[in-house]
Amino acid sequence: MKAIVTVMLKDGVLDPQGKAIGQALNNLGYAQVGEVRAGKIIELTLSETDPAAAKTAAEAMARDLLANLVIESFKVELTA
Amino acid sequence: MKAIVTVMLKDGVLDPQGKAIGQALNNLGYAQVGEVRAGKIIELTLSETDPAAAKTAAEAMARDLLANLVIESFKVELTA
Repeated sequence: MKAIVTVMLKDGVLDPQGKAIGQALNNLGYAQVGEVRAGKIIELTLSETDPAAAKTAAEAMARDLLANLVIESFKVELTA
Repeated sequence: MKAIVTVMLKDGVLDPQGKAIGQALNNLGYAQVGEVRAGKIIELTLSETDPAAAKTAAEAMARDLLANLVIESFKVELTA
């Protein structure tokens, strides 16, 4: 089954990539754009068939490697 | 309102970042991990209050700047 791990910078952590995207959009004429935050999405194909086990494994991977918990938070979603 | 734009490489496009993450996870002992795909997530704060207008605007931004449609596909979701 597939686990989708979304990693975002925590609120309050400066996000220069998001800021650059926001400025570029404003420059292109999208004046309605306010704050922009940029993050990563990692789609894992896992051999687990049990959703609970797959979620636990994906969370362990996120803590071990995918997210830097000092400045980032993560979220795990499962799909079929 | 907020629009969340998810940008992923199209199927069939080589994803070296995903491959590197997959190998790193395997090396850490997560043998259950098969294919890994990496993508970007961009959270836009928009001044639009109408969901349809916000979605249309976010899709236009994704086409203009956020995604490279030659190799990437995108998806727009709205949150409050």
